[in-house]
Amino acid sequence: MADQAAAATTVVELNVGGVFYSTTSQTLAKEPGSSLATLAAAGSDWPRDSKGKFFIDRDGVLFRYVLDYLRNQALVLPESFRERDRLKQEAQYFQLPGMVEAISATPGGRQAGYITIGYRGSFAFGRDGLADVKFRKITRILVCGRVTLCRDVFGESLNESRDPDHGLTDRYTSRFFLKHSSIEQAFDMLQEQGFTMAGSCGSGTAGSSADLKPGVDSEESRWNHYNEFVFIRE
Amino acid sequence: MADQAAAATTVVELNVGGVFYSTTSQTLAKEPGSSLATLAAAGSDWPRDSKGKFFIDRDGVLFRYVLDYLRNQALVLPESFRERDRLKQEAQYFQLPGMVEAISATPGGRQAGYITIGYRGSFAFGRDGLADVKFRKITRILVCGRVTLCRDVFGESLNESRDPDHGLTDRYTSRFFLKHSSIEQAFDMLQEQGFTMAGSCGSGTAGSSADLKPGVDSEESRWNHYNEFVFIRE
Amino acid sequence: MADQAAAATTVVELNVGGVFYSTTSQTLAKEPGSSLATLAAAGSDWPRDSKGKFFIDRDGVLFRYVLDYLRNQALVLPESFRERDRLKQEAQYFQLPGMVEAISATPGGRQAGYITIGYRGSFAFGRDGLADVKFRKITRILVCGRVTLCRDVFGESLNESRDPDHGLTDRYTSRFFLKHSSIEQAFDMLQEQGFTMAGSCGSGTAGSSADLKPGVDSEESRWNHYNEFVFIRE
Amino acid sequence: MADQAAAATTVVELNVGGVFYSTTSQTLAKEPGSSLATLAAAGSDWPRDSKGKFFIDRDGVLFRYVLDYLRNQALVLPESFRERDRLKQEAQYFQLPGMVEAISATPGGRQAGYITIGYRGSFAFGRDGLADVKFRKITRILVCGRVTLCRDVFGESLNESRDPDHGLTDRYTSRFFLKHSSIEQAFDMLQEQGFTMAGSCGSGTAGSSADLKPGVDSEESRWNHYNEFVFIRE
Amino acid sequence: MADQAAAATTVVELNVGGVFYSTTSQTLAKEPGSSLATLAAAGSDWPRDSKGKFFIDRDGVLFRYVLDYLRNQALVLPESFRERDRLKQEAQYFQLPGMVEAISATPGGRQAGYITIGYRGSFAFGRDGLADVKFRKITRILVCGRVTLCRDVFGESLNESRDPDHGLTDRYTSRFFLKHSSIEQAFDMLQEQGFTMAGSCGSGTAGSSADLKPGVDSEESRWNHYNEFVFIRE
Repeated sequence: MADQAAAATTVVELNVGGVFYSTTSQTLAKEPGSSLATLAAAGSDWPRDSKGKFFIDRDGVLFRYVLDYLRNQALVLPESFRERDRLKQEAQYFQLPGMVEAISATPGGRQAGYITIGYRGSFAFGRDGLADVKFRKITRILVCGRVTLCRDVFGESLNESRDPDHGLTDRYTSRFFLKHSSIEQAFDMLQEQGFTMAGSCGSGTAGSSADLKPGVDSEESRWNHYNEFVFIRE
Repeated sequence: MADQAAAATTVVELNVGGVFYSTTSQTLAKEPGSSLATLAAAGSDWPRDSKGKFFIDRDGVLFRYVLDYLRNQALVLPESFRERDRLKQEAQYFQLPGMVEAISATPGGRQAGYITIGYRGSFAFGRDGLADVKFRKITRILVCGRVTLCRDVFGESLNESRDPDHGLTDRYTSRFFLKHSSIEQAFDMLQEQGFTMAGSCGSGTAGSSADLKPGVDSEESRWNHYNEFVFIRE
Repeated sequence: MADQAAAATTVVELNVGGVFYSTTSQTLAKEPGSSLATLAAAGSDWPRDSKGKFFIDRDGVLFRYVLDYLRNQALVLPESFRERDRLKQEAQYFQLPGMVEAISATPGGRQAGYITIGYRGSFAFGRDGLADVKFRKITRILVCGRVTLCRDVFGESLNESRDPDHGLTDRYTSRFFLKHSSIEQAFDMLQEQGFTMAGSCGSGTAGSSADLKPGVDSEESRWNHYNEFVFIRE
Repeated sequence: MADQAAAATTVVELNVGGVFYSTTSQTLAKEPGSSLATLAAAGSDWPRDSKGKFFIDRDGVLFRYVLDYLRNQALVLPESFRERDRLKQEAQYFQLPGMVEAISATPGGRQAGYITIGYRGSFAFGRDGLADVKFRKITRILVCGRVTLCRDVFGESLNESRDPDHGLTDRYTSRFFLKHSSIEQAFDMLQEQGFTMAGSCGSGTAGSSADLKPGVDSEESRWNHYNEFVFIRE
Repeated sequence: MADQAAAATTVVELNVGGVFYSTTSQTLAKEPGSSLATLAAAGSDWPRDSKGKFFIDRDGVLFRYVLDYLRNQALVLPESFRERDRLKQEAQYFQLPGMVEAISATPGGRQAGYITIGYRGSFAFGRDGLADVKFRKITRILVCGRVTLCRDVFGESLNESRDPDHGLTDRYTSRFFLKHSSIEQAFDMLQEQGFTMAGSCGSGTAGSSADLKPGVDSEESRWNHYNEFVFIRE
């Protein structure tokens, strides 16, 4: 705003489909080659409405984000923005390829799909062997879903070595697992990539300890369960 | 916008139920036979408000999407658009049959209903027989719900051969299953058709391995579970 | 709109609590006896604001739906409309009894409450006896909740014959079941009446097949489970 | 509105932080002692904007509900109103103690927290003993959570007699149960007090019928399960 | 407002990117060093729009909260505010460091992530030993997730003594438990810190009472279950 006061500011008044915006010609000209830079250059030759505002025959509401993109040279959408496809249509119309790309790169604009995280767990004694404290014991965290999506989210944390088809990419797998065993870390990685939990289900196991192989802990076996959590990116 | 600057643009100012819009007569005339094309042709004969804007006695808010439809010759609604029935009413009023149809064809406008996806699963060794890595084993994915809805979503992936009533269409079935066994692929297909997960529940099985028929793996049997996931399209 | 052009249209400009609306006196007069019909008749005697618009000292935002009701002679609210009580207050103020009734009759305006749908299920062979295909087997679908609510949703599909208290109405029951056994059909009926799924839980059964009565299938018994789904209408 | 036409109506135009409202001095004066009554009395001495509207240096959007409160002498907020704290700040500023209190008393303004409802259930024959019809059998409905919150919701329906600490109030309990056994009635009471279901989980029991004490029904024991439902008020 | 009437109020009219606001120069000057204080001081030298309003080339919608922050010297955002990142961008632009900090400190602005709460439970007699009343028995409440997040929420209630790695901070644990055993109290603490429940799953245990060690209650063992609840902060 210091800049704004210092420089010679030309306030430009726009009528975008009936919604009025005010900005400067400097802001409009920021992205050379865009049709808004053309407007800034055209000046008085541009069509105007009955009040003398420059007229643009496009949606007036979405223009808020187009203007903001030019002002900040960055795209920061509301956390719950729900007009992504419509905004992309506007960015294309205004010939703002950087903005089109930025829309696609935001969480909600990435490849949609489901990923399931499952673990077989039980309860184990704390390391110091006190009988009264038992903790969740997770042996392995499974990752199931479209291969490209799973790699997107878990990258280096993903152990693909047991997947017999690892040459192919455009496919689904239920043979990935994680190199660590912190289920909440897996959740957090999913959250960072724009996934949310859509469902969860748990089940215990069948069978009495009479069936156990020798050396298997009866108490631990009794508490065996399989919980799976389904995540979605929209 | 290059077109806009080049052509002789006639800015038309509208008062739609008290909300002001600006557009061009070219945009209004785009769909011949609509009542907005009539307005564009009627010109000075059309009723005006006290400021000289062309007056239309309809909801001012929804007109945003009517105008957008004419500008883009395509319907792109917000992802969470919640006034579908109201918008259809407007499109009918303005005699825009293509828009009425487009509203019905969007995800939220298609046949509503529930589909349940279930699977009987357990855990199996990785293909290379290493004892410490066990993966989710899914034998079959069941698809339950209204027959037409299931076909809509799964098409060729649907195995209907075990359904004894496959001559009838307007009915419910719990006898369909999928030709593949990737549960996340089923989820993704549902997502593409506008379904979201509404609920999920899991259960283990009863009975100790003593009851098993000869040749059935005891460890695999112990971890048997049935998980089902309920999807809805609104 | 053809009508609008043909007839002599009197554009009426309103200031409703500071929000401006434009409509016609024909629209305002549509519901005889309402206070808006009074306004249409009062004409120049009605109080005006400083710009000469007819003034109404009510909420400006909700008036959108009051006006729409008069235009369409029908109430079509947004799917997620969340100001029902406030709108009813406005309709009462404007003496529009038909609109008050219509608000109460919309999905969100009907009696609120929970209904639980449960089923005891297992897996059964397909009709042709092929061993590898097993389908969800549902024996009975239970319906639990307030009696009047259950009847509202399921009507003729409801079997009340096992409910020992069927003389009483304002009570809760867990003794209703459905005449069909398609759980998704039950879900769809609930959806049609404005219910959504709020929760779901599943559980298996206890006990080995050694306990089974003679003639009970061991495999089917092993997979027994009880799933219940809770629905809410807000 | 009949009143409005009859009485000498003084239309007052307000500029609240840049948003324009129109009302009457009668409405503004309705709550004696408030600063809006002061404005109504001050009349021409009050600061005005460049268009001569009375100027108030507060948030323009929330003023909608302040004005509505005066018009109706009642607070009716949108069902999903999400600016409660902000609105309370405004009501305090305008010295409307009745409105402050009304905001706190609305569902969303009450004490937040979780309540868990659980039941141990099974299946039982219908009263007439027909073998093929079995119904959900609920022995007791448990209520767990902050004591004051539980009492708020369930009042007289709550059996506190088994709670050993019933002298204390600001504490949590898992020793309350309901006097009735209709789980949906409990849900409905929670809904009436502004709670919604946040989660649900179920589990079966362990052990074969061989372990049962004499006289316990084997079939009923097999289907034992514990379902719990978590509710939240925000 | 008493102040407002008494003092010499200078109404300042702003055009923020096309949205009009009215306030006073006193309000604008409240935070010395901000660029709005600069504007208040600059007075007539500041750029204006065609109607003589002071012009600011920034987003017009978000400015509502910037102005409110100055008026109240406090940040109170709507409960569901979803433009946090965008608002921070504005506060930075206007050089309001206190506001930037306040945005980060609000619930939605804190570190995101998942926390899982689990408990092993069963049913126990009431203290007076009456056979017919059994209550949920929770032995220990486990807390799993990122260590810093868990400490944020549970602080002094957290027992970390069984966690073998308690020297490290930037890591995940599943070895924390709570000093109390009220699961709803844990939920309430999570709610206070801006977490919501995202999923829940339950499972029973395997094994008949024949396997129990001497002295273990058979009835209690039969009802053993493990329920876990996943919470998220966005």
